[in-house]
Amino acid sequence: MGLDPDLDRIPPHLLEATSPAEAVLSFNAAIIEATQASACAFKLNLAFYEVLGPDGWDVLLATCRMISTGTIIIADAKRGDIGNSARFYARAVFERLNVDACTVAPYMGRDSVDPFLQFPGKAAFVLCRTSNPGSKDFQERDAEGEKLYMSVARKVTKWVAEAPGEGGLVVGATNETALATIREDCPTLPFLIPGVGAQGGDAAAVIRAAGTETGPVIVNSSRKILYAASGYDFADAASKEAENLRITLESGLRKVF
Amino acid sequence: MGLDPDLDRIPPHLLEATSPAEAVLSFNAAIIEATQASACAFKLNLAFYEVLGPDGWDVLLATCRMISTGTIIIADAKRGDIGNSARFYARAVFERLNVDACTVAPYMGRDSVDPFLQFPGKAAFVLCRTSNPGSKDFQERDAEGEKLYMSVARKVTKWVAEAPGEGGLVVGATNETALATIREDCPTLPFLIPGVGAQGGDAAAVIRAAGTETGPVIVNSSRKILYAASGYDFADAASKEAENLRITLESGLRKVF
Repeated sequence: MGLDPDLDRIPPHLLEATSPAEAVLSFNAAIIEATQASACAFKLNLAFYEVLGPDGWDVLLATCRMISTGTIIIADAKRGDIGNSARFYARAVFERLNVDACTVAPYMGRDSVDPFLQFPGKAAFVLCRTSNPGSKDFQERDAEGEKLYMSVARKVTKWVAEAPGEGGLVVGATNETALATIREDCPTLPFLIPGVGAQGGDAAAVIRAAGTETGPVIVNSSRKILYAASGYDFADAASKEAENLRITLESGLRKVF
Repeated sequence: MGLDPDLDRIPPHLLEATSPAEAVLSFNAAIIEATQASACAFKLNLAFYEVLGPDGWDVLLATCRMISTGTIIIADAKRGDIGNSARFYARAVFERLNVDACTVAPYMGRDSVDPFLQFPGKAAFVLCRTSNPGSKDFQERDAEGEKLYMSVARKVTKWVAEAPGEGGLVVGATNETALATIREDCPTLPFLIPGVGAQGGDAAAVIRAAGTETGPVIVNSSRKILYAASGYDFADAASKEAENLRITLESGLRKVF
């Protein structure tokens, strides 16, 4: 379940008597309560919190506290910096926010990813083949006989094997062929799969392409659930949409195994 | 001048009677005052602020307010996300922080970069060939007849030409050959060049490789200036180090033109 609160899209009645930060907190509280039973994880895209300015981190921390212990929390931060700076980004998400996992960008190479893999009990999901139109610009390039995203998948597999923390890949739901190819090469790595819902990915096809016995799959949907309705019934509508996705994913899994 | 305050390295006397956030603010205030006359820009790497947790954004905003009007402020954030999320990251840095420029990662392609280029009067520096050891992992790969970083340089040139905002490239100081090759292809783009100082880049060689009449160059040094001394004389030491770098860069420029 993606918690990406957009002030222009949350129900207008929540904006009436409160600050933007309070409106986001009310929205997140209702969405978490409504979807928690259907979700294995909550993914918070930090962009939607940073846009709140200084209040952003308070809202992030308060939101994380609302989520039941035992449910995975993923900071979708897509950080990537030289080793010395990456250490601080990793401490920010894993020690200050205390989330379970963080998304990381691969362009700057191993010393930008490793600090996230150095935390035992935490996980880094490295961008591999993303769900957006721009994924074609560089990720699809032929790089020495394979697509660039396959080079990323192979190197990350090696880095994860050599590190104390857990690691996996971000692979978008919008290209099932790429998803299946990457899964063939990386049968045991955890995959974080965004792009189902508003971005057009098909949940059942994703499970057929990426479901394996040993490689866990986290399929994310944000906007289609968050903004299923814009009135007083938004939480009920989100609950139904989240549960429908859970059922689709589960029935997909039954066909795989 | 890179403002990357590391609590483990700032002078111990600043840590004595204050909170971490206050210590960072005192440090930044002294460094800004000591180096402002030598610097054309301040670059704030957000990792060093996010690690402060909820106080991080307050410290960022307060630091930006300390910098004289007219001096460029760069958020070194290396953000990169799908278009819908990238819009929020761009608003966070350009509207909430109100900085002049932001660094952006290219891996997710055009829709992840474009929202930063949509702000007239603001600038995006896209990672091209970075200064760290991991730059070899993917950036140096041969991608359809050219290094991946050259594909990035060429696409970014096109995107910048088609957008209302300004754009440039991040090219590290640690590989002068790559720097010269990229400059040959992109004679007019602004370059943000980190990696001088602690990372080993040579300031005079950088100017020889990248100095052109029409392509502005911002050369960054952080740690070598910030931590030039660890006692009560830290600001004086930083001032001397920053002024030495300015003189080296300026004499390099004289040789180019």
